[in-house]
Amino acid sequence: MQNAGTIDELLSDGIKATPPSFVRSILKAASDPDVTSFAGGLPNPISFPQENLTESMQRVVAAHGADAFQYSATAGIFELRQWIADRYNARFGHDYTADDVLVTTGSQQVLDLLGKVLLDKGDGVIVERPTYLAAIQAFAMQQATFHEVRLTDEGLDVDELEAALDAGAKMIYLIPNFQNPTGLTYSAEGRRRAREALSGRNIVVVEDDPYGELRFEGETLPYIGGVSHPHGVVMGSFSKTVTPGFRMGYLLTKDHGLLRNLAIAKEAADLHTNVFSQYVILDYLQHHDLDEHLVKIRDLYRSQAQAMVAAMEEFFPEGVTFTQPEGGMFLWVTLPEGVASIDLFPKALERNVAFVPGDPFYVQPGNYNTLRLNFTNADEHTIRDGIRRLSEVLAEAI
Amino acid sequence: MQNAGTIDELLSDGIKATPPSFVRSILKAASDPDVTSFAGGLPNPISFPQENLTESMQRVVAAHGADAFQYSATAGIFELRQWIADRYNARFGHDYTADDVLVTTGSQQVLDLLGKVLLDKGDGVIVERPTYLAAIQAFAMQQATFHEVRLTDEGLDVDELEAALDAGAKMIYLIPNFQNPTGLTYSAEGRRRAREALSGRNIVVVEDDPYGELRFEGETLPYIGGVSHPHGVVMGSFSKTVTPGFRMGYLLTKDHGLLRNLAIAKEAADLHTNVFSQYVILDYLQHHDLDEHLVKIRDLYRSQAQAMVAAMEEFFPEGVTFTQPEGGMFLWVTLPEGVASIDLFPKALERNVAFVPGDPFYVQPGNYNTLRLNFTNADEHTIRDGIRRLSEVLAEAI
Repeated sequence: MQNAGTIDELLSDGIKATPPSFVRSILKAASDPDVTSFAGGLPNPISFPQENLTESMQRVVAAHGADAFQYSATAGIFELRQWIADRYNARFGHDYTADDVLVTTGSQQVLDLLGKVLLDKGDGVIVERPTYLAAIQAFAMQQATFHEVRLTDEGLDVDELEAALDAGAKMIYLIPNFQNPTGLTYSAEGRRRAREALSGRNIVVVEDDPYGELRFEGETLPYIGGVSHPHGVVMGSFSKTVTPGFRMGYLLTKDHGLLRNLAIAKEAADLHTNVFSQYVILDYLQHHDLDEHLVKIRDLYRSQAQAMVAAMEEFFPEGVTFTQPEGGMFLWVTLPEGVASIDLFPKALERNVAFVPGDPFYVQPGNYNTLRLNFTNADEHTIRDGIRRLSEVLAEAI
Repeated sequence: MQNAGTIDELLSDGIKATPPSFVRSILKAASDPDVTSFAGGLPNPISFPQENLTESMQRVVAAHGADAFQYSATAGIFELRQWIADRYNARFGHDYTADDVLVTTGSQQVLDLLGKVLLDKGDGVIVERPTYLAAIQAFAMQQATFHEVRLTDEGLDVDELEAALDAGAKMIYLIPNFQNPTGLTYSAEGRRRAREALSGRNIVVVEDDPYGELRFEGETLPYIGGVSHPHGVVMGSFSKTVTPGFRMGYLLTKDHGLLRNLAIAKEAADLHTNVFSQYVILDYLQHHDLDEHLVKIRDLYRSQAQAMVAAMEEFFPEGVTFTQPEGGMFLWVTLPEGVASIDLFPKALERNVAFVPGDPFYVQPGNYNTLRLNFTNADEHTIRDGIRRLSEVLAEAI
């Protein structure tokens, strides 16, 4: 056929507004086996109960046969939704039922569905500054107007939050525990203040909690508004506790008007989540004590986080600060004003160590003086040695 | 918290424009075991190679270990993309490579990604009249402007196609083989005429072919523009040939500008497709002859389709016409003008037989005189008896 014109003329404003994932390109650069990569966001393979899952697959085929391979319901299988509701009720004393749960293709899909169901071009969405980069992607696809609210050691800056709420927003997206990218956790008081500010506002309050069960220090704290707000949504995932490869996430909400529309969007997106994997995860959860499994993961991540913090305290130059996470997979480093972490990335690679510059975690582009480090995928010796090499790069730059 | 206002005030125009799936509610009504349901769209369980897939799961865990449970690449695993490319090259003599393939969470996700990447509010999309209802859902979510083009026994009405193209559209969505819902297949001449009309137009030409390998009569015909058009896309799926429960679909395109943007949208939607299931499907395809497996499915569907056609010829009253599919899972019944199939649905249920009224397969609501019948989920005796009971309902209505 003759030339038909360029594809650029056909692309939507939505996709043009969506930043490609910076981190994926970084990960390529860091994939050299000689490189100590703190750039990834991968759970440690210790968290995958491979043998138990393989046994579950046998049982699922024997017990469910063709039903495990056939088309299935959009909401997800009932027993898995019931297990998820029971788990949250046991942990937080709520009263969720299976009807309050939607099983999704990873918790990333919840972001996609929320964006579609709530955000038209120009609609406001409030996010933490910095925030999870793939949430920026999902909401940018809807051409949303972002209101960033500064994240402090306690939680959101409440003055900035009030201003953002007054500016108008349909949704606020929060990661209250061991946030990605900062590793910060809202304090009890920080949660209370944010809850107060959100009270009575007509806004969907989304709390994304993929790491909530990976707390290796301190005590579990109540949600901000994901449960108590009339339009509250709590997001969860099996990616950090069982396996990310299955892409198994979920949301809980008592707002069935919202849930019904999220289910319609889910149906138009992929009909339903992989039903065989749903049965396998359910069978695993029914035959094993998840809490015992989590102890293993927490103990490992605690020691890895402590090794990284100890090495940073030993090697990092004056003027470099960092967070000390109580759980999760990441911590956050702040360099002196004016030092752009992205300029240090190639220098770090020369020393065979990789990190993620802060830039993709902000809505506005700019040469930020922050960077994210992942501590879950290297042993303590490698962590110490990698931080030592990174510290040399920082010392030269400051 | 105090009342925060209703969720309706917060819902997007996009979701408000998206019809909930009519069929899902129909399926509920038809789920009574006493009902002979021709309403579903389920592959026959004979098409799921359960034992072979279970063996593949063992091999995958042994061969890939943690990699089969970890996060993975957005495009899909290389060897599976290569297998898909090779399959199309072998069937049609093309020159696809793994780099031309994106693995998706069911082929439904391809519709979601195409909508996001191409369609802003009001942008034109051309679809067959009638067309696949979940394609209407996915494009309606983008608030697209639909141009319906009448589908005939030969293919598209070319005058209507030219008019739609002149009216302006970014994408045309076609199902050339054993179309859902009509079971119609474009003739060689019908394909040539449509190809000619599309030649030189700056439009993305999408051919959805989930049933292409389920042809039980006649010969495979070349695609219209999915391959040859500069912005051509071919969609495929393992749902009808191996298992729908895994939600495993894909697209092939030589337009890497389009593909790059579809991958960004895919990443924002669910990061990547269930990687364990990708490895299992690949292992199954490497250890078994898919063509041998397909013979089984085709033989069954041929006999089921013939049984339904024979029963309709025997029992249906004068003035009722129907298609005679060369493959796939559906056929299409047209009642006399003015007879609304949706009015007959409850009457049919009273006689324990269910179908899908034509309405959800059209963009414009209206009491249509058409209905869809699925022939892949009942034995020949049940099909004959169900059609007999349905014919009584039709006879009364005419």
